[in-house]
Amino acid sequence: MNPSLPRNAPERGFDEAEFAVRTARTQRQMSLAGIAGLLLMSEPEVRYFSGFQTLFWQSPTRPWFLFVPATGKPVAVIPEIGAALMRRSWLDDIRTWSAPAPDDDGISLLADLLRPLARDGATLGVMKGHETHLRMPLGDWERLTALLPGLEIADATTLVQGLRMVKSEAEIDKLRHICTIGSAAFDAVPEFAVAGQPLDDVFRAFRRAAIGFGADDTPYLVGGADQGGYADVISPPTSRPLQPGDVLMLDTGCVWDGYFCDFDRNWAIGRADETARQAYDVLWRATEAGIAAARPGNSCRDLFIAMSEVIAEMDDSGGDVGRLGHGLGMQLTEQPSHAMFDRTELAENMVLTIEPSLSYGDGLMMVHEENIVVREDGAELLTRRAPPELPLIG
Amino acid sequence: MNPSLPRNAPERGFDEAEFAVRTARTQRQMSLAGIAGLLLMSEPEVRYFSGFQTLFWQSPTRPWFLFVPATGKPVAVIPEIGAALMRRSWLDDIRTWSAPAPDDDGISLLADLLRPLARDGATLGVMKGHETHLRMPLGDWERLTALLPGLEIADATTLVQGLRMVKSEAEIDKLRHICTIGSAAFDAVPEFAVAGQPLDDVFRAFRRAAIGFGADDTPYLVGGADQGGYADVISPPTSRPLQPGDVLMLDTGCVWDGYFCDFDRNWAIGRADETARQAYDVLWRATEAGIAAARPGNSCRDLFIAMSEVIAEMDDSGGDVGRLGHGLGMQLTEQPSHAMFDRTELAENMVLTIEPSLSYGDGLMMVHEENIVVREDGAELLTRRAPPELPLIG
Repeated sequence: MNPSLPRNAPERGFDEAEFAVRTARTQRQMSLAGIAGLLLMSEPEVRYFSGFQTLFWQSPTRPWFLFVPATGKPVAVIPEIGAALMRRSWLDDIRTWSAPAPDDDGISLLADLLRPLARDGATLGVMKGHETHLRMPLGDWERLTALLPGLEIADATTLVQGLRMVKSEAEIDKLRHICTIGSAAFDAVPEFAVAGQPLDDVFRAFRRAAIGFGADDTPYLVGGADQGGYADVISPPTSRPLQPGDVLMLDTGCVWDGYFCDFDRNWAIGRADETARQAYDVLWRATEAGIAAARPGNSCRDLFIAMSEVIAEMDDSGGDVGRLGHGLGMQLTEQPSHAMFDRTELAENMVLTIEPSLSYGDGLMMVHEENIVVREDGAELLTRRAPPELPLIG
Repeated sequence: MNPSLPRNAPERGFDEAEFAVRTARTQRQMSLAGIAGLLLMSEPEVRYFSGFQTLFWQSPTRPWFLFVPATGKPVAVIPEIGAALMRRSWLDDIRTWSAPAPDDDGISLLADLLRPLARDGATLGVMKGHETHLRMPLGDWERLTALLPGLEIADATTLVQGLRMVKSEAEIDKLRHICTIGSAAFDAVPEFAVAGQPLDDVFRAFRRAAIGFGADDTPYLVGGADQGGYADVISPPTSRPLQPGDVLMLDTGCVWDGYFCDFDRNWAIGRADETARQAYDVLWRATEAGIAAARPGNSCRDLFIAMSEVIAEMDDSGGDVGRLGHGLGMQLTEQPSHAMFDRTELAENMVLTIEPSLSYGDGLMMVHEENIVVREDGAELLTRRAPPELPLIG
């Protein structure tokens, strides 16, 4: 037993009922949209409908497919190497081939499955909109559609993402658990992020801490540290030792049972200058405004505006990061986006990041981020709220 | 300072000359193939030509593009959030937009860049073949090509993958370094993989060990443990405690400066039955055969046959994993594949996994894997060779 593991970890996996409900809801929407079947191929979509969870997706070699018919359970069309694991899912119809097979990597199997739809001139939904990728070779996609004359293709992005935005309580339990682990790891940072410590060692120590507290992994960790602030928020760490006067930021996506947290923390090493403390204060209050605005009926655009009004006290440029938060779940970032362009209405059980940022000084920026779930009465914090003043280390 | 860090870590990053050579070689091949420009959009391809390295790719929200012209440096077309980091690369021409922007996520910028090619009826190379994905929305790809009548599209997969297969010495240094770290982590496994230890805690301890030995991260870790063997090789861990008589397998992709190791190890917990020891022996000798066959002039098919002949002593089914190893580098798995279908001729400085597997007993399987670089005289091992007999823990 590892004594550092939280004792209240939820169960791994989901009841079969969870997948049945997801599928039934999707099929209702498909029926309304005139979509006779959905062809899915990205990790979160395949997992959403099947529970199939493996890191093997990190290999780009093999494509994996899931077909959601108009009625009944989804059908898996997958490499034989995944058959044993997929058979433990709730699916009954699992079709496999020995992959990789460059000449026919599942294409014949898919064509057989989809031919009835093509014959009927029916519509196949695929994810081809914003924030999606085609996780199969483009050449194979072209070959597949050429094999299926008469098949109509429709974009099912909004349909699927709209359903995935709203989480079940079982999903929220997993998200709360990984946020708790992430909070514990951030609380431990002052133990190892001291002046003189190279930033890449701080990253290593953070990852080891998060895994020690029970994260399955810490796939996402970015950040920066420099005098009075940092200049970008997506860099890998350098080996520059932390120095008094640095502002250190760490932003992490830890994962537990396939669900992510995504939040960050800032610290001042030894001392903080006035501008950095002011930026922190503005962002902390912008986050409060975002949390307060995260209520059913408000839109993502409303959330963006609520945060922007506070950010404008110090930075009225509008920023270059494009948005001030997003959805969170099986992916580090999911729909929707807190941005002027996104009028998605907030609904109960959406899990969101609240992520204001601002630019200041000579090319410096600061970010701040918390994770919440939207409830009937407003936001429930999943992360342990950051302190209202820039914390000092040492 | 972390005393566990290997002292002989290579330099991070590459000299500008490395990118210039990669680009010039590619442009020579493009000229031969009649390709006037390459449009790249996946993480390893963008990094290969620019050095742009960030975990931000884990967010699916924003597309990133790199254009390799017929002559001159590549051009980046990327979200503004990445501009500061990309400006530190060797590129001069960096075009950005404030992403996400669902209505125009870089499409206008790309259309402007590619319009001269379209006007000339020139050919644009894109990655659309085996082991590739379209890392942008399919709908945006369709919109982009519709904006560029006259543009011919050609598949550049073989061209780019063929160049990436052969590593520079600087790349091999990074790969050797992460293989050394992975070997050290595997050597530490008997300290924590003892009877009674839940498998998911073994996974956590392994990740912490690898990061402690200097890995930037351990994004890939799969494995299994059960009486006399394991049934699949892509599953996440259960919390079942290790028991005497288990065969434990761990397969890891650790990463350092963006380069992967990918190898595995087997152990018997407390005792090993005769069949498991025999399977291990066959696979160890199959690996020897693979290593011996990894010489310039032999093909991937030859490697497959050399290993298959040994595997057939115990399992003549041909296996379901589809291949017996693959290329290795910036991705956990790269081209080529050790399989009957792959006649790629081995060349000096290809980095490969040697990965025989077999099925035995009632649905059990065993895998074994080492990493090598092909040299003029034969294979140089990058991993510390596994012991010739199934090692016992406890």
